[in-house]
Amino acid sequence: MDIASSPKETANRKTSGIIDTDVHQSPKSKKDLLPYLPKVWHEQFLTGGIGLSNFYPTPIGVSRKDATPEGDGAAGSDPQFMIEHHLEAYGIEYAILTGGIETALALHPDVDYGNAVIRAYNDYMIENWLPVDPRFKGSIAVNVSDPAEAVKEIQRVGGHPDVVQIIVCSGVKTPYGNRIYHPIYEAAERFGLPFAIHPGSEGKLYPPTPVGYPTRYMEWHNIIPLTFMAHVNSMVCEGVFEKFPGLKFVGIEGGVAWLPHLMWRMDKNYKALRSQTPWLKMLPSEYIKQNVRLTTQPIEEPERPEELVQIFRMIDAEKTVLFSSDYPHWDFDNPKVVLPSMPREMKARILGGTAAELYGLTLRSEQSGGNG
Amino acid sequence: MDIASSPKETANRKTSGIIDTDVHQSPKSKKDLLPYLPKVWHEQFLTGGIGLSNFYPTPIGVSRKDATPEGDGAAGSDPQFMIEHHLEAYGIEYAILTGGIETALALHPDVDYGNAVIRAYNDYMIENWLPVDPRFKGSIAVNVSDPAEAVKEIQRVGGHPDVVQIIVCSGVKTPYGNRIYHPIYEAAERFGLPFAIHPGSEGKLYPPTPVGYPTRYMEWHNIIPLTFMAHVNSMVCEGVFEKFPGLKFVGIEGGVAWLPHLMWRMDKNYKALRSQTPWLKMLPSEYIKQNVRLTTQPIEEPERPEELVQIFRMIDAEKTVLFSSDYPHWDFDNPKVVLPSMPREMKARILGGTAAELYGLTLRSEQSGGNG
Repeated sequence: MDIASSPKETANRKTSGIIDTDVHQSPKSKKDLLPYLPKVWHEQFLTGGIGLSNFYPTPIGVSRKDATPEGDGAAGSDPQFMIEHHLEAYGIEYAILTGGIETALALHPDVDYGNAVIRAYNDYMIENWLPVDPRFKGSIAVNVSDPAEAVKEIQRVGGHPDVVQIIVCSGVKTPYGNRIYHPIYEAAERFGLPFAIHPGSEGKLYPPTPVGYPTRYMEWHNIIPLTFMAHVNSMVCEGVFEKFPGLKFVGIEGGVAWLPHLMWRMDKNYKALRSQTPWLKMLPSEYIKQNVRLTTQPIEEPERPEELVQIFRMIDAEKTVLFSSDYPHWDFDNPKVVLPSMPREMKARILGGTAAELYGLTLRSEQSGGNG
Repeated sequence: MDIASSPKETANRKTSGIIDTDVHQSPKSKKDLLPYLPKVWHEQFLTGGIGLSNFYPTPIGVSRKDATPEGDGAAGSDPQFMIEHHLEAYGIEYAILTGGIETALALHPDVDYGNAVIRAYNDYMIENWLPVDPRFKGSIAVNVSDPAEAVKEIQRVGGHPDVVQIIVCSGVKTPYGNRIYHPIYEAAERFGLPFAIHPGSEGKLYPPTPVGYPTRYMEWHNIIPLTFMAHVNSMVCEGVFEKFPGLKFVGIEGGVAWLPHLMWRMDKNYKALRSQTPWLKMLPSEYIKQNVRLTTQPIEEPERPEELVQIFRMIDAEKTVLFSSDYPHWDFDNPKVVLPSMPREMKARILGGTAAELYGLTLRSEQSGGNG
C-alpha cells in the first residue's frame, strides 16, 4: 500500500478544543496484521512479535517434531517417552540431564525471583526425573548472580547421589574467571561436581559479539562459541584451576574445533606476558587439558572427516571431549552416525569413557571387564 | 598503613558554620603516590594512571626497544631507519603500511573530528612515506562511523598509485556485514582496494568479549580473535561477498587457526538454516576462501609445528594467508624463522605470492621468470 504524501502542518490556525497527542491503538490480534505483511515473516511475527524479548527466534522450532510425547506435554517433558525414544533407541547408558533455560534466570535483575524459580526447577527434577530410572543423572542449576545463594543451593541439593553436575548459563555479565564466582567453585570442588555452562542467553545482557548484534538466528548461532572461548580464557588466566585444581569446567554445546587456536595463542602470549599471571605454574594449554571438557554437539563436520580427527589429536580429545546429543532439540547429533573416521579407541573414550570418569559412573563394559 | 576506626557521627549537636561536602584534593604528581603503592604496580600507574582511558596497557611497551630511530622520533616514524632496520635486514620486497591507531578515530562520537584527523593521517602518509621508496605501499584509513564521508575519502585518495588498501579498526559498534557499511564496499570494490581490519580498539565501546571485561592485557590480547570471527561471520551471512564479489576482506593480526572451526560451523548451520539467507549461493566456507584473507602475525605456534600445517591445509592457506611482521611492535614475527615445517610451496605463497596478487604487486622472482 503506497499513499501519496501532502503537507499536514498549517501555520496561524486559530482553534480551541482538546488534542490528545498520545493514544495507543492496537490490532485485535496479531493475525490482523498478516494481510499487510509478506508471508515469509508470518511465522516469526506470530511466535516472536515485535521481537524485543527474543531477537533470534529459530526459524524451524527449538525441538525435533518427533520428540513431543502423546498427550499435552512438551518435547523432553516425559521421562518414560524419553527412555524409549532416546535412551533405548540409541543404547545410551547414562543421560546427563541439563534441563531447559532455567539457568538464564541468573540474568533476572530480581535475584530473589531467580533463586526461587531455580530452586523449584531443581526440586522438580530431583522429585520427578532422578527416581524414574538409574540412567538419569541430574545437573542442578544455580544463580551465578547471587554467589552466596548459589553456594547454599549446592549445599542443599548437591549431595544428592544422582546429582552429578552444576549447570549455569553462558551469556553472563562477567567472565567466569572473575573472583566473584570463586565461592561457587570452592563448593563445586568440595562436592565433586563439574561446573558446566550452556548457551542460549547470548545477547540478552550485552551484544552477543564484541562488535554488536548479529542479524538472524543463523548468524547468532554461528558465533555462540565466542562466549565459550572468553570463559575458558578468563578461567585459566585468573588462576581458577590453580586455586581449585579439582574443579572441572564443562563447555556444553559451544563447539570444539576452536580449542587448538585458543590454546596456542594463550601459550604464546603466556611466554611473553606471564609477569601478569604469576599464579600460573603451567602453560595455559596444560590447565585446559587437565580441567576443561567440551561436549560434541553440534559437532563440526568438515567435508574431509579426517580433518576433525587431526583437530581432536591436537587437543587430546580422548581426555577432553564428551559425547552429547542435545536431545530433543532441532540440531540433535545422532550417536550412531556422529564422528565418522574417528579411531575406535578415541571414539569409545568420547562416547562414554571420559564422561564415566568425570561423573563417577560405571559403564556396563567395565562391569563385565570389557574394553569400553 | 592500617588505622583503627572510631564512630564519626554524633547525634543532636548544635552548631553553626559552613561545611563544604565536596572539595577535591590531589597529590602534586602521580609519583607522590608511589611510596604507598606496591612496586609491581608502579609502571602501570605511571603510564596508565587510574586507567579509564586504557584498561589494558601492555606491561612490556607497545614497540620493540631496538626499533626507535636515533634522535627524537618514535618507533616506526623514520622511513629510512625502517628501510635499513626492517626491509633490508629481512629482504622484504614490499611493506604494506598499516599506520598506528588512527583507525580508532571511528569510535569518536564527534565524526567531524574523526574525519579531519583521519584525512590528515592519510595525507601525511601519502606525502611523507609513499614517495620515499617504491617498496612502501599504503593503507588509507576511513571513518566507518560516517560511511558517506568514508566513500568521499576513498574517492579523494584511493586512486593514488601506491595506495593498495583501506584499513579500519576492528572494535566497532556494529558488525561489518551490516548494510550501513555497504556504500564503503561499493567504493572499495570499484577502486580495487581490499578492506582490512586491525585490532587495538576492542573494549573501548563494548566489553571486548560477549560476556564482559577480561582483566589484564594478556587476557585481553588472547581473545582479540573473537572480534575477527564475528566480522567474518557477519560479512558472509549478510551477503556482502555476493553483492560485492570483487571485494577482498583482510583480517590483520587477528589469528588464523580459528578459521576451520568457523567455516565448518557456518557450513553446518547453513545446511539447516539457509532459508534465513536466501541470497547466499555457495557454502559460507566458499565465500571465505574466495574473499577473506588473514595475516599471520602473531602466528599460532603449536609445540608440534606440523599441526599448524594441518590447519593451514584445512583453509587452503596458500590462497588465504598473508605474511605480516607487525613491525615495530613488541610481538613482531621474524620472517626468517616464522612458519617452521611449512612446505616450501605453501610458504612461498604466504610470504609473498598471495599478497602480490591481492595488492597487484610484482615480485622480483616473477620479473626474472623464477618460481616465488
